[in-house]
Amino acid sequence: MSGSTFGKLFRITTWGESHGPAVGVTVDGCPAGLALTENDIQVFLDRRKPGQNKYTTRRSEEDTVEILSGVFEGYTTGTPISLLIHNKDQRSRDYGNIAEVYRPGHADYPFQKKYGFRDYRGGGRSSGRETIGRVAAGAVASLLLKELGITVTAYTKSIGPYTVKADAYHLSEISENPLFMPSNEVAKKAGSYLDTLIKELNSSGGTIECIAQGLPVGIGEPVFDKLDALLAQAIMSVGAVKAVEIGDGIAVSNAIGSENNDSFFMEGEKIAKRTNHSGGTLGGMSDGSCLILRASIKPTSSISRQQHTVTVEGQDTEISIHGRHDPVIVPRAVVVIESMTAITLADLLLQNMASQMEHVKKIYAEDKNVE
Amino acid sequence: MSGSTFGKLFRITTWGESHGPAVGVTVDGCPAGLALTENDIQVFLDRRKPGQNKYTTRRSEEDTVEILSGVFEGYTTGTPISLLIHNKDQRSRDYGNIAEVYRPGHADYPFQKKYGFRDYRGGGRSSGRETIGRVAAGAVASLLLKELGITVTAYTKSIGPYTVKADAYHLSEISENPLFMPSNEVAKKAGSYLDTLIKELNSSGGTIECIAQGLPVGIGEPVFDKLDALLAQAIMSVGAVKAVEIGDGIAVSNAIGSENNDSFFMEGEKIAKRTNHSGGTLGGMSDGSCLILRASIKPTSSISRQQHTVTVEGQDTEISIHGRHDPVIVPRAVVVIESMTAITLADLLLQNMASQMEHVKKIYAEDKNVE
Amino acid sequence: MSGSTFGKLFRITTWGESHGPAVGVTVDGCPAGLALTENDIQVFLDRRKPGQNKYTTRRSEEDTVEILSGVFEGYTTGTPISLLIHNKDQRSRDYGNIAEVYRPGHADYPFQKKYGFRDYRGGGRSSGRETIGRVAAGAVASLLLKELGITVTAYTKSIGPYTVKADAYHLSEISENPLFMPSNEVAKKAGSYLDTLIKELNSSGGTIECIAQGLPVGIGEPVFDKLDALLAQAIMSVGAVKAVEIGDGIAVSNAIGSENNDSFFMEGEKIAKRTNHSGGTLGGMSDGSCLILRASIKPTSSISRQQHTVTVEGQDTEISIHGRHDPVIVPRAVVVIESMTAITLADLLLQNMASQMEHVKKIYAEDKNVE
Amino acid sequence: MSGSTFGKLFRITTWGESHGPAVGVTVDGCPAGLALTENDIQVFLDRRKPGQNKYTTRRSEEDTVEILSGVFEGYTTGTPISLLIHNKDQRSRDYGNIAEVYRPGHADYPFQKKYGFRDYRGGGRSSGRETIGRVAAGAVASLLLKELGITVTAYTKSIGPYTVKADAYHLSEISENPLFMPSNEVAKKAGSYLDTLIKELNSSGGTIECIAQGLPVGIGEPVFDKLDALLAQAIMSVGAVKAVEIGDGIAVSNAIGSENNDSFFMEGEKIAKRTNHSGGTLGGMSDGSCLILRASIKPTSSISRQQHTVTVEGQDTEISIHGRHDPVIVPRAVVVIESMTAITLADLLLQNMASQMEHVKKIYAEDKNVE
Repeated sequence: MSGSTFGKLFRITTWGESHGPAVGVTVDGCPAGLALTENDIQVFLDRRKPGQNKYTTRRSEEDTVEILSGVFEGYTTGTPISLLIHNKDQRSRDYGNIAEVYRPGHADYPFQKKYGFRDYRGGGRSSGRETIGRVAAGAVASLLLKELGITVTAYTKSIGPYTVKADAYHLSEISENPLFMPSNEVAKKAGSYLDTLIKELNSSGGTIECIAQGLPVGIGEPVFDKLDALLAQAIMSVGAVKAVEIGDGIAVSNAIGSENNDSFFMEGEKIAKRTNHSGGTLGGMSDGSCLILRASIKPTSSISRQQHTVTVEGQDTEISIHGRHDPVIVPRAVVVIESMTAITLADLLLQNMASQMEHVKKIYAEDKNVE
Repeated sequence: MSGSTFGKLFRITTWGESHGPAVGVTVDGCPAGLALTENDIQVFLDRRKPGQNKYTTRRSEEDTVEILSGVFEGYTTGTPISLLIHNKDQRSRDYGNIAEVYRPGHADYPFQKKYGFRDYRGGGRSSGRETIGRVAAGAVASLLLKELGITVTAYTKSIGPYTVKADAYHLSEISENPLFMPSNEVAKKAGSYLDTLIKELNSSGGTIECIAQGLPVGIGEPVFDKLDALLAQAIMSVGAVKAVEIGDGIAVSNAIGSENNDSFFMEGEKIAKRTNHSGGTLGGMSDGSCLILRASIKPTSSISRQQHTVTVEGQDTEISIHGRHDPVIVPRAVVVIESMTAITLADLLLQNMASQMEHVKKIYAEDKNVE
Repeated sequence: MSGSTFGKLFRITTWGESHGPAVGVTVDGCPAGLALTENDIQVFLDRRKPGQNKYTTRRSEEDTVEILSGVFEGYTTGTPISLLIHNKDQRSRDYGNIAEVYRPGHADYPFQKKYGFRDYRGGGRSSGRETIGRVAAGAVASLLLKELGITVTAYTKSIGPYTVKADAYHLSEISENPLFMPSNEVAKKAGSYLDTLIKELNSSGGTIECIAQGLPVGIGEPVFDKLDALLAQAIMSVGAVKAVEIGDGIAVSNAIGSENNDSFFMEGEKIAKRTNHSGGTLGGMSDGSCLILRASIKPTSSISRQQHTVTVEGQDTEISIHGRHDPVIVPRAVVVIESMTAITLADLLLQNMASQMEHVKKIYAEDKNVE
Repeated sequence: MSGSTFGKLFRITTWGESHGPAVGVTVDGCPAGLALTENDIQVFLDRRKPGQNKYTTRRSEEDTVEILSGVFEGYTTGTPISLLIHNKDQRSRDYGNIAEVYRPGHADYPFQKKYGFRDYRGGGRSSGRETIGRVAAGAVASLLLKELGITVTAYTKSIGPYTVKADAYHLSEISENPLFMPSNEVAKKAGSYLDTLIKELNSSGGTIECIAQGLPVGIGEPVFDKLDALLAQAIMSVGAVKAVEIGDGIAVSNAIGSENNDSFFMEGEKIAKRTNHSGGTLGGMSDGSCLILRASIKPTSSISRQQHTVTVEGQDTEISIHGRHDPVIVPRAVVVIESMTAITLADLLLQNMASQMEHVKKIYAEDKNVE
């Protein structure tokens, strides 16, 4: 597993298991001179913190971040930013029985086969706690984007059958309901649905949507590091995501060209598009309109219902998973999807600086103090 | 644009524009000792060759591959394999007018903004001809996988509203119809639909599905280079793809845990799953069942209908794109999706070799001839 | 600065400044199943610990390592290994004046120009304390190599004019003198030389040699990731190194072919070389004989003598650097050079596993439990 | 072997064997808008062309470059630049006997062990012809640097015992003698020395020095991708190089701090250094003075004298290598060293653009045409 690093210039490396002493991330390549405090990061971490309401686990982590390097007198120095969050509530006794059994829907079985060995406590590295490092890094990326006038916003679009329709968004309501939906009304119905599932010892899937506004045109590095391609990797790498869509997504398969093509027109001095079926990308680069992506999240795999499975020794058995689990992953994953989007954008924005000789000359035009 | 390389150990670098003298790919990191001939690659290229039927462009390329390096006496040597395909039919006069106008649905506008300059002939690097290098490399990857008993198969699942249902697949029919659908019956209906669209100077989207069988358990490098994450990047990097799904894909958002979890059971000595909602991945690693992914393909952007757009100088205008264009991209993209899947699997299979000390010792156990 | 990661499969990312709260490293890609304890790493760190004798600074760090992830029940799990060492003795008052002045021989000036901003305390990221992460990672790499019968040994070959001649090595004496020389006799003379320099408020350069035994033939990935090329990067990346030599090194420029070529001969069943001018590499790959490399280390830049320099504001000035500094960097850098060599070898050994289809088949031949 | 790619943003991938149909390189990431013609590249290739005088092989290659992609109407487009050079004179009959024997000083033995198989014709991938791709890419990098006022110049510093002393350089004479020495006088003596070696069926080593002027301060990405570290990799990756030195190089090991430190002073408005022992780098970044590096080149391994060696089957034998070989590698390697230096500088210059938020804002400050 040498896959814990993401990004080429804005490069993050995450580490840590559910029941080890800590989790964390190193952000390498953040430009120097960005104002950054622990509080900036804490705000992001608090959005994924467990125990905030009845739809999230009661595990009582504080998830307090420490900046261990890369920041001096309130500004990034250009050197690696090491962020660490201690695991405080590691009740490993809850998880003892899963050492011998492969939980359905979990990574236990492939982990055991891949490494011949696994840290079974709380899922180890495949636990949702792995995303803490991503969110801490996402906070840094978001600050960088903000300096350039770029905002990234994620929210819950659907939980089970309860979907916020595109024409019924109230972005201001996202922070007003525990499910982070842009509609308090739909959130209420989805909440009732989750209440029922909790009683039935079951769980629900859902959809997260993420938008980015203010992106310059041309961000993305064809042909393999296209904007949509790296976003797809970034989003699909989040546990429980089973689909990634850009713009109209799967709907394009049933569309016709005359309707799917977004017409350009002049809006004053500016080039604009009449529609945005493309979701803000053309040819793998940003096209100046709002970036739109969606992630489909599977239902929480850990359910208290009895399930059929097998033991490590190859015997059929049954398991019912106790412990602290969310009936739906979606609300806590919202900030994770937003973070991965921000990280990908930050990396590609930095890479794009080198696209034109004009840019290169602009940076190196000034007095270089050379002999 | 330094994004033309994909893969860490099995690493491909593609190059070439639609109307330059040639396109090609370098495959670096293919293990030595794999039997490889130009014919092995030609078979793959022929599957995406234009001009085969009325649903593909009449551009008459031969697309004949030359192996320029990396193969000696019929076997790969471990050195980079350079594959070149000359562009023979570059009627650039067909494309002259697009120098001044941004075509809707195309990469023209972001290309111009990103680089301040573009090769407008036939879309340049964003042309579908860019995929030739991918397919040539995919042929090599597929041979490698075949040696390990792994097969990858892609086909057209849907065109517009015409979908082959999962319980109506006839894989043997894929090669029997010009749309590469696993159902001649559905292909016939889809063909009629395309005939209508051709008359209406329009185009259709569709869906490609790809399956891989015979994968060992544990392939994939968490947490960012997970099997599904790299597949998502690989597939989304193909032009016109707007969504990538693994297994049940977007359907998981409306599923419940007790049904979405795939139960394990012992099938003789072997661990098996009762269902395969996961599409063959758990925790970002292969889980021993069939890998299933789907790509949603947008309708061909080049349509002969008149469309509103703007000029490079910022004037509103109209454009109708003449030239040779497919009414649907899907059939010719089938082998591209299959190729990108094979390349990703080959790379991750090689990476996985280093996962356990047991593997490392197995390779280095023999007489090392060391002092 | 996105340059804090080294290696492709065995991949390390270091972080931390001299006067921040901690320094550390993440080792990603270490195969699972390697026995690893904090003590294994501590042994390495203790070899570079300051304050051990009069030739090393009196800064009293304990440099105690904590394993924060990637190890479970005494074995590596295949997930990232996060290693953290707290900075305990950060007397930043000693360094206050260097905020305004560029120290000769130090990175202050380019740091300021590159980032527009720097953490001036103790050199920040360019401090020797940055090497702690390298050494901690080197301990892990060395354990991996040891499992394969490979040993890496570094020692001081020269300090100023005092050189241990190749025919006068006593490897057992390396640990018997404070300068880590393979000759107590030469070490004694070099010690007297250093005593004189200390009195003169001056410093000395020197040479470190490193050998590796037991390497399989063929390690190294031509043409850019050759064994010697990656070693050169790894070694030159250590602060104060100004030259890297392999085998005869610069002496080859004055050699003739008939003497420089190492003849092969059969030593029983084994292929051996009569001489080892090549230092164990041919064509950028290990050749089965002992790997030999040397690093030339410049004199400690921090000296208490008065030196001419300039201020950040562009005024001529003078500086004499007080604080705790070694009269020679070499002894403490020995374990750093050894570590970087081990890390490079571990990475290339893992990469080499994928060189032949025979190897690939060997790993995947066993029961794969696939459907 | 996935090691044929070098660079992160300005990224080259070389391919090709001595006796295959062609050799080449893909340059990915060159900024758009750089004027580039085949002639610009040909000028570089001609400097390493064989058959120019009695000190280079009589193999009569024309080495004519073709630009296959990435350039449109005389300017780079930002897409990959594919450069191809056909092998025209592949007299493989000269090399037949080496299929069965490992040549001393060559890569034959490790190649065979690493890959279990090798293209023995003319050394295959380890032939000097592999450097053609490097030089073609170096021409592109050099043009890019020239646009920024940066020049890179390499020359022969020594051949055998004949060295041009630092105070006796006449850079204008480099192109006046067949050995590319900055002294016609020393070149004449070195030529006589080579004449003698030719008669004795022997060969000589030598030293190449390379300088770069006009570099901005701060180029290099600590801690592993430092300017000197990546240069060390780049230079050591060239076949036959056994040592890389920066500035004073190995001489620092016998220096004292008060002399080795380069004092800063104000030269008008500019920060300058009294001396340049550092060779233009401090802390792994450019320091504004002239960059100086040296490569020590071993004697040509192919000599016609009889040498002891072993067969592939493990029998002692003797070999005398006939065919066309230079008595010294150095003159033809001069442009290779210059090219690798230019490529490394181009890559790090592009990377450095992202070091400061100020730079990032400067690029993205303009009208972004965003919604």
